[in-house]
Amino acid sequence: MPQGVESAPPARTSLGIVGAGQLARMLCEAASALGLRTTVLAREPGDAAAAIATDRMVGSPADLHALVALAETCETITFDHELVGLDAVRALEADGTPVRPGADTLVLAVDKAQMRERLEREGIAVPSFAVLAPPGQRSLVADVEAFAEIHGWPVVLKASRGGYDGRGVWLAEDTAAAHAICSRAAETGTPLLAEELVAVAHELAVLVVRHPSGNCLSWPAAETTQVDGVCREVLVPGRLPPAVAEAARHLGVEVANLIGSVGVLAVEMFWTGDRLLVNELAARPHNSGHWSIEGSVTSQFENHLRGVLALPLGSTELTAPVVATVNVFGDRFGSDPHTRLAEGLAVCGAHVHLYGKDPRPGRKLGHVTVLGTDANVVRERAWTAARALGTPLPARAEVSQ
Amino acid sequence: MPQGVESAPPARTSLGIVGAGQLARMLCEAASALGLRTTVLAREPGDAAAAIATDRMVGSPADLHALVALAETCETITFDHELVGLDAVRALEADGTPVRPGADTLVLAVDKAQMRERLEREGIAVPSFAVLAPPGQRSLVADVEAFAEIHGWPVVLKASRGGYDGRGVWLAEDTAAAHAICSRAAETGTPLLAEELVAVAHELAVLVVRHPSGNCLSWPAAETTQVDGVCREVLVPGRLPPAVAEAARHLGVEVANLIGSVGVLAVEMFWTGDRLLVNELAARPHNSGHWSIEGSVTSQFENHLRGVLALPLGSTELTAPVVATVNVFGDRFGSDPHTRLAEGLAVCGAHVHLYGKDPRPGRKLGHVTVLGTDANVVRERAWTAARALGTPLPARAEVSQ
Repeated sequence: MPQGVESAPPARTSLGIVGAGQLARMLCEAASALGLRTTVLAREPGDAAAAIATDRMVGSPADLHALVALAETCETITFDHELVGLDAVRALEADGTPVRPGADTLVLAVDKAQMRERLEREGIAVPSFAVLAPPGQRSLVADVEAFAEIHGWPVVLKASRGGYDGRGVWLAEDTAAAHAICSRAAETGTPLLAEELVAVAHELAVLVVRHPSGNCLSWPAAETTQVDGVCREVLVPGRLPPAVAEAARHLGVEVANLIGSVGVLAVEMFWTGDRLLVNELAARPHNSGHWSIEGSVTSQFENHLRGVLALPLGSTELTAPVVATVNVFGDRFGSDPHTRLAEGLAVCGAHVHLYGKDPRPGRKLGHVTVLGTDANVVRERAWTAARALGTPLPARAEVSQ
Repeated sequence: MPQGVESAPPARTSLGIVGAGQLARMLCEAASALGLRTTVLAREPGDAAAAIATDRMVGSPADLHALVALAETCETITFDHELVGLDAVRALEADGTPVRPGADTLVLAVDKAQMRERLEREGIAVPSFAVLAPPGQRSLVADVEAFAEIHGWPVVLKASRGGYDGRGVWLAEDTAAAHAICSRAAETGTPLLAEELVAVAHELAVLVVRHPSGNCLSWPAAETTQVDGVCREVLVPGRLPPAVAEAARHLGVEVANLIGSVGVLAVEMFWTGDRLLVNELAARPHNSGHWSIEGSVTSQFENHLRGVLALPLGSTELTAPVVATVNVFGDRFGSDPHTRLAEGLAVCGAHVHLYGKDPRPGRKLGHVTVLGTDANVVRERAWTAARALGTPLPARAEVSQ
């Protein structure tokens, strides 16, 4: 190149990520491998992804000014979580920023009432539900009682916005319990949904990645084990009749196409033994898909990047017959799993992921994935490693069934 | 925790990396997955790993002050390259900083003359060689002629320090050529080695990872294809008689144990059809091991971290019967492979890695790995993806054999 002539700046794609938790961290790891630059909008400078993103900004995901500042650093914006201001997201979109997924998809992950209504309208099976009147308008309890007359007690009551990991979900055994829950909801202005209590045989999650062109790929259905609403273990393939697993996969793709998601969509489902019901949507990489980092040809993180950046999607085939992931949680002493890294890594075949988060009792701090051919061996190894890293045993017996 | 009582800072292991090229970048990616913090000592703020390391410092790897500043940020120091000041490294070690590998190992990667002498003394087969007298002391050409009388012309002349990717290696066909090479070496004060020209049937690389306790694991021998001294392709397993591949693996472990390396040691070898000769050592992750990111249960990067941090080593088993990696180089227009990312990712099963480096003609900018069962299919796909990313075809025919 002749002296004095400057080359054009390299055409380096840069991704803005709203939120800087572990999902953003693993997105940044995948982005680094592809040579991409990332900027995270962190709530705190010490958030998990802030240590690895190319650039970091601190601000609220609900603040339009923060989102605009993020948009100025990058070509495309995506999300680590859905606790975002939808109005701000719509304003960004109106301004021409590629936001993927867009507000029309995000709203279905943000608002359970809208999600249930939309899916029901589209003919997708969901648990029976009723959107309760906004607090204050009239007696919520009367609505719950009316719902219980049709579907019986107990009734599940859910905050339609803001709940996660079991928070924002209550079980009302009778009118008195419903009254107590509805009173608290009215005090905090929390809008509620009433739902049938589904007799769940298995909980599953189907991850789908969708390209802006409409091209769509799904990963095999994963079986998730929740304790007190928190996912403890993911097993792929799930222990389901093959026809059910296949139907779940088709259902996941159907939902992604219906709502026009871009990037990864996690479709959480209940299998009752005769019904497959869609329970929740997350329009981003999801805890139920961490197994794909080692267990699939293309991880959910890389495929999310490919989807939101309109790059060709990668194969979602398994790399082993069986994959299990067990989440790592903080023990009751708040000790740091990093001090036990040697014990976790000593478990043969354990792929240890720690998120660099400050340890707190019960906080999700990492996960362990094990690949193999025998589900019992694979699960046992993953649990052994997670336990070695300090994860307390769940109080209930579900995970050892 | 009671209010007012501060918790101790988390015991978060931090690694200092001397150098911030693509090897450091991939080390940082592996470190992030384990929740570890990294600080790189970069030559330039725009170096490949600076975008992803937790922290970055700019300075010379030969400058003791820079190394001391790096040591203050971390618990253990390791390396992205061996262009370091050994005296500075020894000073750090004397001061109690864990430096892994240590100067006694590094010197063998830095100085080919010492490496050849040490390995020969230990009974390891190496190409016949002679360390030439320091320039100026007496006629180098006479030494080369004496060497040629025993081993014949042509004679390979190598700079014993500072050469890489084919630089610092010359072929002297006769006395006149030797005279020209030796004169230039004398002018620049470059110490030289004379070596026999080995009739190489295959070049291989065996990667070994060694724990400070002496525990040692090796990956299967990889066949490397060099064009003009630059590695273009790596195939695992190599196209070698199984007994030779196994002998190579044993030889790699023998060398690692002899020199007491810690972390990854790359042992590059020649197979002549009846002799297995050690050619080069690199005491760090190596281009010949990038295939292990997807192709092995534990990548060379994660196992290097495990080794240098004295964590248990991970399995080096293959994840597929055949793995091929093809390097991505800048084309003659200096165009950026990032602009062609879609074309590279469109190749089914291509694991694309780009290093985020500024593109320059001939510069190594990334690599592509493909896994499968048929070596021809796997190699062809990896080449197709690397070509799609702009990699020029090599001038010679070796890679398509």
